Amino acid sequence: MRGLEKWLRARGLLVLLDAEAAEWVGGQPGYTREEVAERVDLLVVLGGDGTLLSVARAARERPVPILGVNLGTLGFLTEVVLDELFAALERVLVGDVRISVRMRLEVEVRCGEKQRGRFLALNDAVVNKTALARMINLETRAGGKLVSEYHADGLIVATPTGSTAYSLSAGGPILAPELAAFVLTPICPHTLTQRPIVLPEASEIELRVLPPTEEVQLTVDGQEGLILSPEDHIWVRRSQAPVQLVESPFRNRFEILRQKLHWGQR
Amino acid sequence: MRGLEKWLRARGLLVLLDAEAAEWVGGQPGYTREEVAERVDLLVVLGGDGTLLSVARAARERPVPILGVNLGTLGFLTEVVLDELFAALERVLVGDVRISVRMRLEVEVRCGEKQRGRFLALNDAVVNKTALARMINLETRAGGKLVSEYHADGLIVATPTGSTAYSLSAGGPILAPELAAFVLTPICPHTLTQRPIVLPEASEIELRVLPPTEEVQLTVDGQEGLILSPEDHIWVRRSQAPVQLVESPFRNRFEILRQKLHWGQR
Amino acid sequence: MRGLEKWLRARGLLVLLDAEAAEWVGGQPGYTREEVAERVDLLVVLGGDGTLLSVARAARERPVPILGVNLGTLGFLTEVVLDELFAALERVLVGDVRISVRMRLEVEVRCGEKQRGRFLALNDAVVNKTALARMINLETRAGGKLVSEYHADGLIVATPTGSTAYSLSAGGPILAPELAAFVLTPICPHTLTQRPIVLPEASEIELRVLPPTEEVQLTVDGQEGLILSPEDHIWVRRSQAPVQLVESPFRNRFEILRQKLHWGQR
Amino acid sequence: MRGLEKWLRARGLLVLLDAEAAEWVGGQPGYTREEVAERVDLLVVLGGDGTLLSVARAARERPVPILGVNLGTLGFLTEVVLDELFAALERVLVGDVRISVRMRLEVEVRCGEKQRGRFLALNDAVVNKTALARMINLETRAGGKLVSEYHADGLIVATPTGSTAYSLSAGGPILAPELAAFVLTPICPHTLTQRPIVLPEASEIELRVLPPTEEVQLTVDGQEGLILSPEDHIWVRRSQAPVQLVESPFRNRFEILRQKLHWGQR
Repeated sequence: MRGLEKWLRARGLLVLLDAEAAEWVGGQPGYTREEVAERVDLLVVLGGDGTLLSVARAARERPVPILGVNLGTLGFLTEVVLDELFAALERVLVGDVRISVRMRLEVEVRCGEKQRGRFLALNDAVVNKTALARMINLETRAGGKLVSEYHADGLIVATPTGSTAYSLSAGGPILAPELAAFVLTPICPHTLTQRPIVLPEASEIELRVLPPTEEVQLTVDGQEGLILSPEDHIWVRRSQAPVQLVESPFRNRFEILRQKLHWGQR
Repeated sequence: MRGLEKWLRARGLLVLLDAEAAEWVGGQPGYTREEVAERVDLLVVLGGDGTLLSVARAARERPVPILGVNLGTLGFLTEVVLDELFAALERVLVGDVRISVRMRLEVEVRCGEKQRGRFLALNDAVVNKTALARMINLETRAGGKLVSEYHADGLIVATPTGSTAYSLSAGGPILAPELAAFVLTPICPHTLTQRPIVLPEASEIELRVLPPTEEVQLTVDGQEGLILSPEDHIWVRRSQAPVQLVESPFRNRFEILRQKLHWGQR
Repeated sequence: MRGLEKWLRARGLLVLLDAEAAEWVGGQPGYTREEVAERVDLLVVLGGDGTLLSVARAARERPVPILGVNLGTLGFLTEVVLDELFAALERVLVGDVRISVRMRLEVEVRCGEKQRGRFLALNDAVVNKTALARMINLETRAGGKLVSEYHADGLIVATPTGSTAYSLSAGGPILAPELAAFVLTPICPHTLTQRPIVLPEASEIELRVLPPTEEVQLTVDGQEGLILSPEDHIWVRRSQAPVQLVESPFRNRFEILRQKLHWGQR
Repeated sequence: MRGLEKWLRARGLLVLLDAEAAEWVGGQPGYTREEVAERVDLLVVLGGDGTLLSVARAARERPVPILGVNLGTLGFLTEVVLDELFAALERVLVGDVRISVRMRLEVEVRCGEKQRGRFLALNDAVVNKTALARMINLETRAGGKLVSEYHADGLIVATPTGSTAYSLSAGGPILAPELAAFVLTPICPHTLTQRPIVLPEASEIELRVLPPTEEVQLTVDGQEGLILSPEDHIWVRRSQAPVQLVESPFRNRFEILRQKLHWGQR
């Protein structure tokens, strides 16, 4: 952190630190994550995929490029590892990198006319049972048409970016990041033939919990959400504000997949 | 219900009704389910698989045969449908049926020396995250040996009987009812290669939640359980008290599978 | 057949019959399937999904609408059943139906400069081992970049239309018919983490069998193909000639899925 | 090889070499694999799992212990790696190892009264379509009772030992080696609800190919087999002659699973 700060200042770049980073380097005035995201031309995230998700959320709808640097092993979103940090930044500063534009979901919870919540999801929106319930019944519509009533532990609506996260664990396919689509992946469906469905991003999804489901919650990117009430409807559509990820100059998307999923070995 | 009661009394049989059944027929003195189970030679369950599970629990370790009669469509545990009720009873009364002995799990939760809970499971014991947590880390041992640290939504330990219930939805195999084994089925494992494992029933399973997992709960047969504390260990072993199910005289196990899982059609 | 012919002629429509249909109605001069497809404004297919696939192939790149009428139960491609035939035709004749434009794959087999075969696939192109071989090694590239070396029984490249056929049996997701994408679904992959990947239709796929694979074959729509030689490369890309399917006026896509996959029931 | 031979002779042990091994060390008289297996007290296999399968077959029903030494990376059957060879042999010679008794399948092909073939399988018996056919229809009975008519690419009957081989790729569960059971795993079943079934080893399985299936073949342990005729029946039952594998003194079964399946990592 200290080294990174020095390196950037030595190049005449103004560095804004969020409170957490400020604490690391010591004595600096710290901004909130949102204040940083509003003011800078590049967001450098040091951490794992979870940290990057929360930074993307802090940036709201502002199209600022994000460079994810993983402090541990390679991530799906944090494609640069610590050793490559400065080499990657050199490339960023001369404009010799590609930006991967990643679709986000806009997730709205409404009870009649009243909006109960609105979220942006880079990875996924998950509706699932709380611990006590055994199963939920979830009516799902796309473009107004009934897709299915899921009887399951829950349902994941994932972006291409999120297809390698929770959806993959639930049996979903991998979607290429540039695909104009999202995937509905049921979690432990009671009906064994209910398989993941990939829909065009133009489809507006409407989810409604049916009785006698008891307690159900919505979770966005695994980090925020709310407990749903029986009259709530959830609307999921493509957000107008995608996220701009700086692509690793050192490995392409398929290399990351092969490395993360151990495709080289059994 | 009323018809069943008459039919049985007409044959000189003493009928005990639990409180719920007593309410149906009207005016009868009702027993608790446990009191009924202690006193009778045959338990007739009218309801679905969930009802049968709760009756089996009420019978505790007493080896009384249970006849499950499904009031709706065929169940996995309630193999006789309403139309067949009297024909099935005729067969039971002359001893012309087979008893299917079904292994149960004994599930014990211990915190150090202290026993926090003890349960009997005819279907399954499930350890899973509560709604807020994203994933749990679960150390699993069999016969003292480490099997795996699961990073997953949860883990199901299912009997052969329970293999067609929740475990099947989570991707587990079907186990023949008479198999002396149980199956460990992870729920949405983070590690994609963690597949269901079938172990001999002699294996004692020990489960321990590892940090930084937050809130985890144990559910037995989808009906009872408790919230786990960080120091709790769960022990799962074969119970000495199996359940005795009266087999349907009208269809064998594979016919039930074919009908329930629509194997005849795509 | 005879009834259909009369019905059409009574409306002043010219009816061309292919040889097979001609044989059914008796005594008519029959055309080849290709000759029929070249001359008509509407192709009516009486049969199952397999028949429709072969008719679409006979039409080559000519954009003639196809109405599929299933003589048995509902199909994924033959969305109209026999009872609905005349009602559907009434709708077709007044132009009150929708055409579903279905992407096809162009599949080319080349050995160096030489083209060994070229095929159009409405459902899928499958590369798989012949019976004696245990497994194949298949290098797969998309847009020139290595995706993976599959060690598997084979690989399916499926269109959205084909996603509910063989790919589904091999564990692939369902793709909405209008999705501009195709899916790579490995068959019994040795590496358990090799999951189906959905790619944008602009991706050109290149497949190359690696030693020591012995005998491998290519099958297109389950109906035609060839045995591959060690030096062959297979190129799969979006065809410029989609197929035009007449949509059922009586049920939408999701209803067909629900009915075919028994989503209403367990 | 030469080093191993010296090491053994230096301890006064008589070494028999099969023809392949004899060629390696040079100039020795070589026996057939079957001749070696008939005469020795311990079979040492240097190679991969495939080699061990073929040696087990050469030993026929003679209960001679087999030590598998993998010349590459760890195998499921060859649990000792080259570095550990001499340490493992020291343990074998003083009797300080455990023998893992592995159930085998006896596979018999009969056409009416005539036996067309009889095989022993340590891993699996596979009935599958040859390349040209799209699907097979396979009637499967256990203990005389119809289990299912599979419409699939094929069916695997696997032992616990074979559960981590081809069956795993086809979606089957892992069976503990000591489990008295085998598993029926369909390959790409047309009916999505046809899941792997684990049956007690006492079940005799009968397989019969139904029309209109064209060409079907039986493969045993991926190494031998025959093309089936329409009238053939296949009987699969537990063999009276299990295989005796020397267990690795250095790692237990679960460690091997964790290492082979990369459970430590995502």
